[in-house]
Amino acid sequence: MIAGILGGMGPAATAEFYAKLIARTAAERDQDHLRVAIWADPTVPDRVAAVLDGSTDPYPALLAGAGKLRDLGASVIAIPCHTAHFFLPRLAADSGAPFVDMVAETAEFLAGRTGPVGLLGTRGTIAAGLYQRRVPEVEWVVPSEAGQREVDAAVAAVKRGDIAGGAAHFDRARVDAPLSVLACTELPLAAGKSGKVLDPTDLLADAVIRRCGGKPVDVRPPA
Amino acid sequence: MIAGILGGMGPAATAEFYAKLIARTAAERDQDHLRVAIWADPTVPDRVAAVLDGSTDPYPALLAGAGKLRDLGASVIAIPCHTAHFFLPRLAADSGAPFVDMVAETAEFLAGRTGPVGLLGTRGTIAAGLYQRRVPEVEWVVPSEAGQREVDAAVAAVKRGDIAGGAAHFDRARVDAPLSVLACTELPLAAGKSGKVLDPTDLLADAVIRRCGGKPVDVRPPA
Repeated sequence: MIAGILGGMGPAATAEFYAKLIARTAAERDQDHLRVAIWADPTVPDRVAAVLDGSTDPYPALLAGAGKLRDLGASVIAIPCHTAHFFLPRLAADSGAPFVDMVAETAEFLAGRTGPVGLLGTRGTIAAGLYQRRVPEVEWVVPSEAGQREVDAAVAAVKRGDIAGGAAHFDRARVDAPLSVLACTELPLAAGKSGKVLDPTDLLADAVIRRCGGKPVDVRPPA
Repeated sequence: MIAGILGGMGPAATAEFYAKLIARTAAERDQDHLRVAIWADPTVPDRVAAVLDGSTDPYPALLAGAGKLRDLGASVIAIPCHTAHFFLPRLAADSGAPFVDMVAETAEFLAGRTGPVGLLGTRGTIAAGLYQRRVPEVEWVVPSEAGQREVDAAVAAVKRGDIAGGAAHFDRARVDAPLSVLACTELPLAAGKSGKVLDPTDLLADAVIRRCGGKPVDVRPPA
């Protein structure tokens, strides 16, 4: 079994996801870990602009990357980028590659929940309604325009390697909800160990581990 | 340009190296970063045993991985595992893949230096003389048998995901030298931010960035 990661969107988020995949695999020695193939192409055109106004087109690069991982024999492919999930149905159909869907994993985790849940992500992810359409039962709370600007700034800071700056912006971006979904893969790097957040990359990592026949360690996200 | 990483030996060391490659690339946005392909196969048979007594043979798996990265179009391939560098001359010749040599990069950095330098690595790396033969001008100081057991324990702890345990063993493994080379890629994870160590993966990352036409940020290892 080979776990594929279609990454680079952004690169630090991909490295963090790979580290998480390793940390969440129950293992005593190298040979207990998953075989992993990563195609990380940070030159994929901007996903947010593609969703918001169609001024960019990341799809050909995503399809090319999926094909490379499929040809390497990936048994399952994860995309540690929420906004790119907008393209997932088309990508899965066109490539025939076996994807695991981070938004679907998160929806499954949230099943049965009602009440307010914060949604912190790019303007593309929010405008596409990725989470709102998948989990209509909860009351999604998105940031104010000022708060969204802090989310945007946190994501941009992480992308240029400024984790401390990202954390400062993230701290000012909170919404009024008992739990917030970190719906952008740069945000876990900025959020640190806050207990009030649900990090879908945790769920994505565990799904990949299970599908590859491995055993996730018992680290539960907040309920 | 595509940077290839032949990794998984171990997996946490590969994730750390990938994160380092990103952190050391001067970039303002995703698209400034390197395109990276990683083949991480933790099931490669034990490298240390192969060097010490030939009871394992990692070579076929290493050659297969190098071929995959070459076929993906890697312009340069890094191996974030010192012990595996024992096989590098044969691997480069057989695969025709364009490797960057971490031991050679470290030798270049140490050029002109004399006096004691600590060598902390696996028993395989030390027995193979990877550093001693490449840099004969310095006085290599290897740990006592008790110290080497601490190095072995630090490496094993990191491989099973116990970074804190690795750090505790590493702290007891020091040798009497003003600078020590972390000649095993698990050790930077256990060593933290100690100022008295030279981490060859820093030099490997910068070499990869330069060969891909990127610009390393100005983070110098200790002189």
